[in-house]
Amino acid sequence: MNSILDLKDSMGFIAAFLTTTAFVPQAYHSWKTRDLSGISFPMYSLFTLGVAAWLIYGLMIDSLPVIVANAITLILSAVVLGLKIKQIKQLDQK
Amino acid sequence: MNSILDLKDSMGFIAAFLTTTAFVPQAYHSWKTRDLSGISFPMYSLFTLGVAAWLIYGLMIDSLPVIVANAITLILSAVVLGLKIKQIKQLDQK
Repeated sequence: MNSILDLKDSMGFIAAFLTTTAFVPQAYHSWKTRDLSGISFPMYSLFTLGVAAWLIYGLMIDSLPVIVANAITLILSAVVLGLKIKQIKQLDQK
Repeated sequence: MNSILDLKDSMGFIAAFLTTTAFVPQAYHSWKTRDLSGISFPMYSLFTLGVAAWLIYGLMIDSLPVIVANAITLILSAVVLGLKIKQIKQLDQK
């Protein structure tokens, strides 16, 4: 049932807002400084894959908070992972 | 509907496994080394609150993957947050 005051969705969006907000500074720091030394490639790959899986799960169970939170996080973590891959390739060439 | 081959739950548990696994090394590192310099207190507080909110949301929408993933992550992040608070208090006393 859709209602403006849907309690479940409200809780979901509070959760989505909090965990996504907490993730932004790390992605911003990686983007801004290009310092990716603190990023572990295997762990970040697992995380990005996991976020993609959560997004698919959110679409399957039709949960808008799960979809929104993981869509935003997937974009951010894919950018960081891309920078990390670029860095690894550059180090390999040296 | 419950079925051993419930596709939604399978996807959810894959997601839960991946993101929780990716989070464990960071918590383990913080616990083992007690080096919490890379942990931002405001961001980690937001994150821990967010995980608690996801757990409540999971209970509200009856999603076992969301419940399991966030229960495990909440325990881990609460431990790290506790260590960080302890460290801040010790620094305050100096």
